[in-house]
Amino acid sequence: MKVKSKIWLEKNGQTVFGSGRAQLLEAIGKLGSIKEAAAKTGISYRRARSYIKLMEMRLDVPLVYRTIGGEGGGGAELSKQAMELIQNYRALEKGIHNAIDQKFQKIFCE
Amino acid sequence: MKVKSKIWLEKNGQTVFGSGRAQLLEAIGKLGSIKEAAAKTGISYRRARSYIKLMEMRLDVPLVYRTIGGEGGGGAELSKQAMELIQNYRALEKGIHNAIDQKFQKIFCE
Repeated sequence: MKVKSKIWLEKNGQTVFGSGRAQLLEAIGKLGSIKEAAAKTGISYRRARSYIKLMEMRLDVPLVYRTIGGEGGGGAELSKQAMELIQNYRALEKGIHNAIDQKFQKIFCE
Repeated sequence: MKVKSKIWLEKNGQTVFGSGRAQLLEAIGKLGSIKEAAAKTGISYRRARSYIKLMEMRLDVPLVYRTIGGEGGGGAELSKQAMELIQNYRALEKGIHNAIDQKFQKIFCE
């Protein structure tokens, strides 16, 4: 038997961040394009845009900047707040998964 | 912002226990009836029976015994294994929620 867990962040009862959204933002940071990041994380461009818009609205911070021009005709990059959010969420997740595994071993396996 | 979490147990990649199933078994233990427990936890009798059957199959232990006769024409009671599973799951959940809240405070709020 294994323990599984999911962690997400809510604000005023609405989801503002979680594993899928973290993956999407990370991919945007890496690929410099919402379109490519959406494809990589297996969601439509439309849904990716909607996620970003909702996160920005609910958190009231800019997360993704559109860049104009350059090779490929412009792209996207992460704001400082987005990078901080990803970093904090990943740190939380990592600490939690370790704590859960330890507690599970202690309660179910000893 | 608040952190939310969900914890469940899997065996061979299949869910065997979680918050909904814990509530169902707890209600059976309290009410002595699968039918009443299903109603209390907001699922159909059919779904409750199916959850119990799948949990018993996947965990390979008896969880609910049907009792025959008596006032009301028989009912249901929990096995020792079911009581232990509920207890362990609730202990895991409690420990984890505390750990998550602490980590969240530390990472996001300090």
